[in-house]
Amino acid sequence: MLPALHRNLFIAVLFCGVSCAMAQNTLQQYQSVNFSKVRIMDNFWRPKLEKVSTVTIPVCIDQTEVKTPRIRNFEIAAGKRKGKFEGIFYDDSDVFKALEAIAYSLKNHPDAALEKKADDWIDLIAAAQLPDGYINTYYTLQFLDKRWTDMSMHEDYNGGHLIEAAVAYFDATGKRKLLDVAIRFADHFDSLFGPGKRDWVTGHQELELALVKLYSNTKQKKYLQLADWLLSERGQKKAVGYTWTDWKDTAYAQDSKPVREQKEITGHAVRAMYMYTGAADVAAHTGDQGYMQAMKTVWEDVVYRNMYITGGIGSSGSNEGFSVDYDLPNENAYCETCASVGMVLWNQRMGMLTGEGKYIDVLEKSLYNGALDGISLAGDKFFYGNVLASNGKQARRDWFGTACCPANIARLIESLGNYIYGYNNNSIWVNLFVGSQTEIGLKNQQVVIQTQTNYPWEGAVGILVSPQKKERFALRVRYPGWVSGEAVPGGLYTYENNKQHSLTLLSINNQPVKYTIENGYLVIDREWAPNDQVSISFPMDIRRVYSRSEVKANVERVALQRGPLIYCVEGTDNDGKALNIVLPKTAQVVTAKQQVLTENVVSLEAEATVLSVMPGGENVQAVKKKIRAVPYYTWNNRGAGQMLVWLPQRILDIKIN
Amino acid sequence: MLPALHRNLFIAVLFCGVSCAMAQNTLQQYQSVNFSKVRIMDNFWRPKLEKVSTVTIPVCIDQTEVKTPRIRNFEIAAGKRKGKFEGIFYDDSDVFKALEAIAYSLKNHPDAALEKKADDWIDLIAAAQLPDGYINTYYTLQFLDKRWTDMSMHEDYNGGHLIEAAVAYFDATGKRKLLDVAIRFADHFDSLFGPGKRDWVTGHQELELALVKLYSNTKQKKYLQLADWLLSERGQKKAVGYTWTDWKDTAYAQDSKPVREQKEITGHAVRAMYMYTGAADVAAHTGDQGYMQAMKTVWEDVVYRNMYITGGIGSSGSNEGFSVDYDLPNENAYCETCASVGMVLWNQRMGMLTGEGKYIDVLEKSLYNGALDGISLAGDKFFYGNVLASNGKQARRDWFGTACCPANIARLIESLGNYIYGYNNNSIWVNLFVGSQTEIGLKNQQVVIQTQTNYPWEGAVGILVSPQKKERFALRVRYPGWVSGEAVPGGLYTYENNKQHSLTLLSINNQPVKYTIENGYLVIDREWAPNDQVSISFPMDIRRVYSRSEVKANVERVALQRGPLIYCVEGTDNDGKALNIVLPKTAQVVTAKQQVLTENVVSLEAEATVLSVMPGGENVQAVKKKIRAVPYYTWNNRGAGQMLVWLPQRILDIKIN
Repeated sequence: MLPALHRNLFIAVLFCGVSCAMAQNTLQQYQSVNFSKVRIMDNFWRPKLEKVSTVTIPVCIDQTEVKTPRIRNFEIAAGKRKGKFEGIFYDDSDVFKALEAIAYSLKNHPDAALEKKADDWIDLIAAAQLPDGYINTYYTLQFLDKRWTDMSMHEDYNGGHLIEAAVAYFDATGKRKLLDVAIRFADHFDSLFGPGKRDWVTGHQELELALVKLYSNTKQKKYLQLADWLLSERGQKKAVGYTWTDWKDTAYAQDSKPVREQKEITGHAVRAMYMYTGAADVAAHTGDQGYMQAMKTVWEDVVYRNMYITGGIGSSGSNEGFSVDYDLPNENAYCETCASVGMVLWNQRMGMLTGEGKYIDVLEKSLYNGALDGISLAGDKFFYGNVLASNGKQARRDWFGTACCPANIARLIESLGNYIYGYNNNSIWVNLFVGSQTEIGLKNQQVVIQTQTNYPWEGAVGILVSPQKKERFALRVRYPGWVSGEAVPGGLYTYENNKQHSLTLLSINNQPVKYTIENGYLVIDREWAPNDQVSISFPMDIRRVYSRSEVKANVERVALQRGPLIYCVEGTDNDGKALNIVLPKTAQVVTAKQQVLTENVVSLEAEATVLSVMPGGENVQAVKKKIRAVPYYTWNNRGAGQMLVWLPQRILDIKIN
Repeated sequence: MLPALHRNLFIAVLFCGVSCAMAQNTLQQYQSVNFSKVRIMDNFWRPKLEKVSTVTIPVCIDQTEVKTPRIRNFEIAAGKRKGKFEGIFYDDSDVFKALEAIAYSLKNHPDAALEKKADDWIDLIAAAQLPDGYINTYYTLQFLDKRWTDMSMHEDYNGGHLIEAAVAYFDATGKRKLLDVAIRFADHFDSLFGPGKRDWVTGHQELELALVKLYSNTKQKKYLQLADWLLSERGQKKAVGYTWTDWKDTAYAQDSKPVREQKEITGHAVRAMYMYTGAADVAAHTGDQGYMQAMKTVWEDVVYRNMYITGGIGSSGSNEGFSVDYDLPNENAYCETCASVGMVLWNQRMGMLTGEGKYIDVLEKSLYNGALDGISLAGDKFFYGNVLASNGKQARRDWFGTACCPANIARLIESLGNYIYGYNNNSIWVNLFVGSQTEIGLKNQQVVIQTQTNYPWEGAVGILVSPQKKERFALRVRYPGWVSGEAVPGGLYTYENNKQHSLTLLSINNQPVKYTIENGYLVIDREWAPNDQVSISFPMDIRRVYSRSEVKANVERVALQRGPLIYCVEGTDNDGKALNIVLPKTAQVVTAKQQVLTENVVSLEAEATVLSVMPGGENVQAVKKKIRAVPYYTWNNRGAGQMLVWLPQRILDIKIN
């Protein structure tokens, strides 16, 4: 049966190609332009993509293949060498996630040697797959008879990352060997689990969103149905095994209620983000209003009460996830890098489903702050958690025992192009402001879009909108909350002056133009002509941000924001200390230019009150001093040291060190 | 076979009784007097034992039976009700540990209703045991076919606590139903694992020490051999399964080297303590010098480089265990209560094996500080971790998801009598100074020993040594390190004036007496007569304690100690704050009397430098102020608040809150 099936798939793919992913669906307001069609050219992101291709991915390969036994496990399972499984049961997923990052990188930065390396890995993976489609070195090499008995053991999670890697690698190279492995795995899973077959309540969601990708690639409806069914399994008290998580704590893996009935965010942050991303993907195809309503309510619970100003989520280390509302400690913030990546994924889907800019506002916040902080400027070191205050002990690390974050941030950056533009039949959407070029197929013609900007340092954004011939359609440019005066939707954080500070200037071909503001977008609905040049100037005022008083950690404190970037004070710029700085309400804050390593940034300066210990160590004095703040994502690149995002406006209490 | 075996055992027990535990062995210098022969009568410990009997044990029962499904799981397994397993896989152990505490309590504080409750539980446990001797509700109720496949799943750990409870309950009541269950379990384990049978590298040591208890009770050598074999399995890369722990981190469960080759303390602190206690118990019977040498070296690694001044161990929360040498943070100290209990267990054994007082010095430190802090003065709330500095957020809790600590501290306090006296053929050992009475059988006669003291508040200790007839033997009274001037062995902590502050006065029947000091004991070797009254007066100077400079957290800081007690400053005694106090080197510290709730304690007072925020919140001033310190074990009984053990001697740095 398999060969016939594959033949059919092959034909389907030939005829369908990338456009399959754009198939009409019942709920989406627009479709994101695939990264493979977007060329990024700016001074902010382009070097970061290059760094991931030339530094981060080699680091991931070295760690996966040489420094840890992840590839070795596949070699043993493939019969290429003798030995025992080593590592932990979800290590296979790191191989797949690295392959996914490589796939995106090959599009952005073709590299024959890298492609050869990926092909070699894929050969091993294919050889490690069992005849029935099962693939998991942890079980295969140790106790195959126990496979699929413990729902918390990430067999399906690993499989989900296999599918994501396979679809990405096929899209990047046209090579289908890994895709065939993924299809065999998905069919194996489908043969065991589903309506009328065995139950499966995964301990770590991921397969759902992956199956929708496989559906988009293959057009086989069973994968979409399986994803939907996996979601429907939750909240029914059907979990079995769960040795890896506390059985009692069904909230940990979002299993305490059916997905459609969920109203609050609970448990492990990454699991939650992947689950809702999967639910959004399913809803996009099925039009499921139950998922939609639940996701809107849960999203409000995240953003209104449980999100850091950096867009990071999951404040608690003990469950790698959510605590109680407003519990957002800064020094002990967990804020896993992967959870911020998950925020980008989910909010992208919510944006497409609703057409509302607030989701992209949050996406942008998580991307430029919580996620980007997870990787060093040099691309070779990583944060697993991302604190908002440091006593100087934190440092990015080369790798982790549980190594989910490095390859996750790598694949996110390499696929950044996915998040910039969108389209439907009669509109083009500009979501992120990234110097880049793409071509978008509207109903009647291709339109070239080219963005030029020095964002996020400057607010001027030029957008060339160039149809081949005159046609009327709408250009929808996101009108960021940080411009309109909404620090975040829901009011967890507010700006000191909760109004637009300066006007946004907008012109076309140097002429003023009529526009409306709808759902967080500047909408210019008009007849466009070749080489129309849109100019927008977002005001880059420095914003003082405050928390709701329920956030105990931020009482009488202020954070600084400019554009989408959150700032922090770091010891290295401030005589070695940061936790001794008071920023009075009256202090004026101005911009300055600065280099953080090779990164040219806009930093902030202010006259602050700084406490210092007097000689002898028996008293303390306050002095007025110029302090400097740098973009949060750049901290900890010049050595470990104190850091603080939320600056006290007066001394409430002190602690002697 | 079983009935015959049991008959034999029964006869053996009749003839052997408690004295079996005293059987001659090859290595021990002395044997501890069993708690069941020691009547505690002082004002410090007696009320604590009563509190555990009347408050803590009822709390444990309520939590185990009513508020959580621990007993319910046994009811289901026993076929008394329908339902599914709920909880986590090591929950059975909490039932057993509560039973062990009850057993000791029944000796100290007979209570027919409590004994009836224990008997009911034991009926359930017996009914839940499978015919082949296996007992574990987690596997029995869910997937019995997977039993004994994953060495990290605590099946043997639970079984160890079953054995400890069974031996204790038999000793307390003479009832052998639970003992028979334990023997059947041990025989079941023995039938599967051992030389020539299957390997077993436990993920959580405990069964080893329990099997030695069962050996002492039954005199069946196979249990001793099995304990020895379990130890010998470690460090051979034989661990299988280990889903619950990171396979790669063999150090986590002390499995990276064979026990006899271990030189450093690693990994999970409780696992380590239980393992070395088991190794000491085996060595006591087999004379194994390999274990002895390893334990001495590892003990030095614990005490010289990795122990808090409170006798707590395991500084790191991520592995519930040891970090790198000298990494002893105060605010983030993990210091699990169970690990301090483990320190008491292991050091008791080391003391018996070597006759050296330094082990009992450490035992006393862990007991009066790190362990006792784990339970509230009212006996109804518990700390899992025991920090040495608090920003005010810590609070003892009613119970824990992982509930190892409450019953563990309960069983320790109820069995306190085990740690006071020791004996061999020609010596009596006084290890702890607790107002109490016992009768000790030397070779030729019984000797009544009665201690009277107001320790730890006062240093006067009266010991009545009353043989029936005159006889020469040695009385060995521990000469504490805190008297001799050694804060801890190895110099991790030192006293400001590292000499004896005042002389210890010692007389017999009001006459000066000749004594020697050997291995940390005051030795009076003489002919004793009925009603001889020894009077000792230990100097109760207030000691300033310093850390080695390698302990970064304590640089330029001082801790206060008086007798065995470590002190702390608590906000409630100091205008609501503690983290703003500087205790200059020149500050004089004096004693005062104080009540902490109903506990009469000796507290300390000093003229310190206290920082306070000036009105307006833009500056800080230092004022001289009287501050007060209370015994560490009493903190957090008058509400949450700031607390500090290590006081800065000058302001090195400050942090604004």
